[in-house]
Amino acid sequence: MPELRKDPVVGRWVIIATDRARRPSDFVAEPVRPVGTECVFCEGNEDKTPPELLAGRSPESRPNGPGWSYRVVANKFPALRIEGELEPTGEGLFDRMNGVGAHEVVIETPTHAASLATLPVEAVADVLLAFRERMVDLKKDPRFEYVLVFKNHGAAAGASLEHPHSQLIATPIIPIMVAEEMAGAARYYAMKERCVWCDIQRQERRGGRRTIVEASGFLALAPFAPRFPFETWILPTVHRAAFEESGVDELRNLAALLSGFLRRMNRVLGDPPFNFMLHTAPLRGSELESFHWHLEVIPKLTRVAGFEWGSGFFINPLPPEDAAAALRAESS
Amino acid sequence: MPELRKDPVVGRWVIIATDRARRPSDFVAEPVRPVGTECVFCEGNEDKTPPELLAGRSPESRPNGPGWSYRVVANKFPALRIEGELEPTGEGLFDRMNGVGAHEVVIETPTHAASLATLPVEAVADVLLAFRERMVDLKKDPRFEYVLVFKNHGAAAGASLEHPHSQLIATPIIPIMVAEEMAGAARYYAMKERCVWCDIQRQERRGGRRTIVEASGFLALAPFAPRFPFETWILPTVHRAAFEESGVDELRNLAALLSGFLRRMNRVLGDPPFNFMLHTAPLRGSELESFHWHLEVIPKLTRVAGFEWGSGFFINPLPPEDAAAALRAESS
Repeated sequence: MPELRKDPVVGRWVIIATDRARRPSDFVAEPVRPVGTECVFCEGNEDKTPPELLAGRSPESRPNGPGWSYRVVANKFPALRIEGELEPTGEGLFDRMNGVGAHEVVIETPTHAASLATLPVEAVADVLLAFRERMVDLKKDPRFEYVLVFKNHGAAAGASLEHPHSQLIATPIIPIMVAEEMAGAARYYAMKERCVWCDIQRQERRGGRRTIVEASGFLALAPFAPRFPFETWILPTVHRAAFEESGVDELRNLAALLSGFLRRMNRVLGDPPFNFMLHTAPLRGSELESFHWHLEVIPKLTRVAGFEWGSGFFINPLPPEDAAAALRAESS
Repeated sequence: MPELRKDPVVGRWVIIATDRARRPSDFVAEPVRPVGTECVFCEGNEDKTPPELLAGRSPESRPNGPGWSYRVVANKFPALRIEGELEPTGEGLFDRMNGVGAHEVVIETPTHAASLATLPVEAVADVLLAFRERMVDLKKDPRFEYVLVFKNHGAAAGASLEHPHSQLIATPIIPIMVAEEMAGAARYYAMKERCVWCDIQRQERRGGRRTIVEASGFLALAPFAPRFPFETWILPTVHRAAFEESGVDELRNLAALLSGFLRRMNRVLGDPPFNFMLHTAPLRGSELESFHWHLEVIPKLTRVAGFEWGSGFFINPLPPEDAAAALRAESS
């Protein structure tokens, strides 16, 4: 019998195929392999990107020249523009405002064919520290309410360049998905006076069927009601609303867990395309007792079709218990 | 300057690229062309599907044999199962229930290489009447709260069979997207005592920049804040909450407008993959003053990536005014 499961935060139902479920090995994807060997993000091509906002550099190197381990630059084709004011206006019953925001690219390594799964843990930690640094800086701009950090890996997951990179978009509005998570978590908190993600972790640790790995203050788990096969959440085990308030040591530990998780995922699924998205508190909500930041990783293995677009229901052909078991069985 | 626009019903913001906007002709897709010539849905293969629930048949033909113009059958691989009770249970803080529902396939024509855009209007009307008939029948089952009608056309839009078909899924829960539309529409109604979709039509008809075609009681328009390039809504011009309360003549008029719209879309975009989804009132809400049924058509032209999955914001590289102008300029 298929099963309907409800996400305890946002209340979204998903359909989990439990009887005609597919096996984890059925999901092996077209592997993501770099085709090119050099691009605008490679070392030596620094003049082909906007000037760097932040970089990890050897002492003798110069800004916007070679000798870096990561670089953050403005997106050359930004979704939102940094200049100007919002100027909200109406058009009859419609509302619009200027597309003011920031859109930055984190070039994660000078090496075209590397990846977060194969870089040294220190290099992954530097990328996470760059996210934090840029969020702290963008927070100073009173026009921005939220910073979304995300990664598209592989063309099928929406990446237009194959050189390892992630992105930040600062928005003048709290995104609807974050607002829905906040509202759901606030309802839970009003009832229980506890954070829902703290409670989820406590319960999942006892059951153990959906946990994947826990180490040094972070837990990776398959959520109870995932939209996608192998969807994974990584959360700090101690309550914290805002990613940017993490300490250096914490982000090093996260880097170790994340790169280990990506290697497991790559072994089980054959280097699949994937996205990750950081869900953190709004820039003006870092003290929230009810919100708990988490990183969502979704390999791109299935197609979203009319039923999903029309209903918001998702059909997931793999129970999360099976996904977690397959990931647990691999070494990192 | 890019523009942030808010959907007046659900409150979702989208980013419309207005300055570096792409031209309508940039979106021409890999055309959907049938590769095979025969399949399980073709005439003569009736024994390869579950028995028919409804069919358009010539008087001398027999059920589950040749001689039909459309057939409705149960889906052989259903997302939800028709047998059993919901039996909602908890697992700590999680909620689940049995995946009870109905999943049916409407085989739109016996001809493998036909399509809704090329079938005679009467045949398209028969398909719409089949939707109505099945909805009226499924409404009798007290376990069901909603029937979602949708179509996946082309592999990129999630179709696993290329023979023209659409689907119905009856669910025991009102889908979250419909619930959000209902809530938004109810808020608007509470303020204005008018249906928001009636007001949208009035305003759009005056402006005219986003209307595509209006005929015999139906209007096709590009919504103000579309998630996707060329997203189109088709609405009855007179208020009606429930699709299944449409009369035969109305559905004939809808068939004429829909097939004409699909031909326009195919000319502008080169036979793209697409989805359509019928948004109608819940089965027990057909009298709603605030809800207005509509058909959403979304050609599959862009990829959904980390930013969209993490935020619920959509980046749409084509202003709806440009999409509507391109569609208006074509003949149907």
